[in-house]
Amino acid sequence: MTDQLYGGIEGGGTKFVCAIMEANGQILTESRFDTTNPQTTLSTCAEFFESHAHLGTLSALGIASFGPVDPNLNSPTYGHILNTPKPGWSHTDVVAFFRRRLGLPIAFDSDVNGAALAEQIWGAGKGLANFVYYTIGTGIGAGVILDGRLVHGALTPEMGHMRVPHDRAIDPFEGSCPFHGDCLEGLANGPALEKRWKTSAENLPPDHPAWPLEADYLAAMLHNTICTFTPERVIMGGGVMSQTQLFPMIHQRLKRSLNNYIQLPAIEDRIEDYVVHTPLEGKAGVLGALALALSLDPQQNQRRHNERHFAE
Amino acid sequence: MTDQLYGGIEGGGTKFVCAIMEANGQILTESRFDTTNPQTTLSTCAEFFESHAHLGTLSALGIASFGPVDPNLNSPTYGHILNTPKPGWSHTDVVAFFRRRLGLPIAFDSDVNGAALAEQIWGAGKGLANFVYYTIGTGIGAGVILDGRLVHGALTPEMGHMRVPHDRAIDPFEGSCPFHGDCLEGLANGPALEKRWKTSAENLPPDHPAWPLEADYLAAMLHNTICTFTPERVIMGGGVMSQTQLFPMIHQRLKRSLNNYIQLPAIEDRIEDYVVHTPLEGKAGVLGALALALSLDPQQNQRRHNERHFAE
Repeated sequence: MTDQLYGGIEGGGTKFVCAIMEANGQILTESRFDTTNPQTTLSTCAEFFESHAHLGTLSALGIASFGPVDPNLNSPTYGHILNTPKPGWSHTDVVAFFRRRLGLPIAFDSDVNGAALAEQIWGAGKGLANFVYYTIGTGIGAGVILDGRLVHGALTPEMGHMRVPHDRAIDPFEGSCPFHGDCLEGLANGPALEKRWKTSAENLPPDHPAWPLEADYLAAMLHNTICTFTPERVIMGGGVMSQTQLFPMIHQRLKRSLNNYIQLPAIEDRIEDYVVHTPLEGKAGVLGALALALSLDPQQNQRRHNERHFAE
Repeated sequence: MTDQLYGGIEGGGTKFVCAIMEANGQILTESRFDTTNPQTTLSTCAEFFESHAHLGTLSALGIASFGPVDPNLNSPTYGHILNTPKPGWSHTDVVAFFRRRLGLPIAFDSDVNGAALAEQIWGAGKGLANFVYYTIGTGIGAGVILDGRLVHGALTPEMGHMRVPHDRAIDPFEGSCPFHGDCLEGLANGPALEKRWKTSAENLPPDHPAWPLEADYLAAMLHNTICTFTPERVIMGGGVMSQTQLFPMIHQRLKRSLNNYIQLPAIEDRIEDYVVHTPLEGKAGVLGALALALSLDPQQNQRRHNERHFAE
């Protein structure tokens, strides 16, 4: 159909992944590099694309980055990583670097917004106009698709930092968020599990009391998310969600918590198809970057629009 | 500029308000009727518009209704009031009634979504692309404008029912929501104030301990809302917010709660301009209905788009 090529950069706190993909979704080549300082790391990525010029010219580059990022085209700090705890990376103008170095159309967004777009194209969000993607791992992040498009306010969603009920009689853990203490992320991300139970999450057996408690917090998060967006589906990924025993616990608690208030048959009748595990586990980052690159192509957007209407 | 006329119906649980407005915002006539059964109430509204036919032909009718409503054009129950505690009103097809009776283009949405649109045109959301409108009264409801447009998921937002921290040592009140007990609405709406303090909210003096506690809950709500949408402003109305002593308490708690995490200068430097009282107090309902009618006019939409760009 077309032999256009797209580049993607997944910018993570510990590694950067670069890839080149055909329009049909076939990845031609992929490499990963340690995250060091911005100048070295970004140059290494640029060299990756320069060294693969023989594959053809890229139509666009997508960058899905750790954050907080500024993806607002009207903002003076568009394309930057903002104030970040990652040493040396605050105020890095990522887009300007690659625009200067590679001279390509660039799409720039948060890693989790990229992952949500990837779900829309290749994952559990295919054919849906409204859904939410959550990653529960070192951090808790969300990407929201409404009416087929990514939600941005003045910045990107930071739903991981919402406040949820925390009963200290049941869970005396104070919370690990350096900003908010016992916000959702402070109670339920990977490091919180580790601090509370004094062992890493992977070492906790599936019948450990850590998991029903984790499910309590994630069900409260989903309750709030569903009351806010009334999505058609919620897709969950990230390291913590690879503990798939969590899903039935979350389904049960969420149904009880919503108590038939949100009048969506999908919740009342088929909650296990409503809150689902990502089918893109482990690939969401780089696919997200490539999805961002594809999003610059009006033809691809039209195709997805048609798919949604066909699905309706 | 134009002599087009627009009709609006504010559908409330106790009264319906009908109005006719010129495109410039001038209301020519307005009447209110008690809410009885659907057939009588809707007929009375239709007669209002028929009896004012001498003013000219209406270009469109906007209906901003109590809910839950279905404003999704692709849904089989579009234009209906869904399952509602209001006796006799569940499954009323409001749009079909007026389409049959008046034969006009009709815009239909929730009362609070209408109010958010009214803020965008005439209120504190003028010139903003992203903001949230909250009403805190008998219920707690929200309308969200993102990228200049109202947010709808599969249904309308029900953010009033989010779960927030509730410390029973400080506030042993169980919550008054028939679905969720101590969700936000169950803890912080007008009836919750009344049940907790055994007197109606208007009788509580401004220095009563009811208000700092109310501000705690509303600050948690705003914390979650701001982490979700990173709006440019939050506008608050409804009966409870006419207790304006709440605003400084909310500002203080919200700033402490967010703790500089959301990197918006408006929050850090000018929080009193960031969370504001509606300038449309008491008129949000009928203006919301008229705003919905105006929203059907592409010329009016273009005008607002230009205003935003001019404001930027």
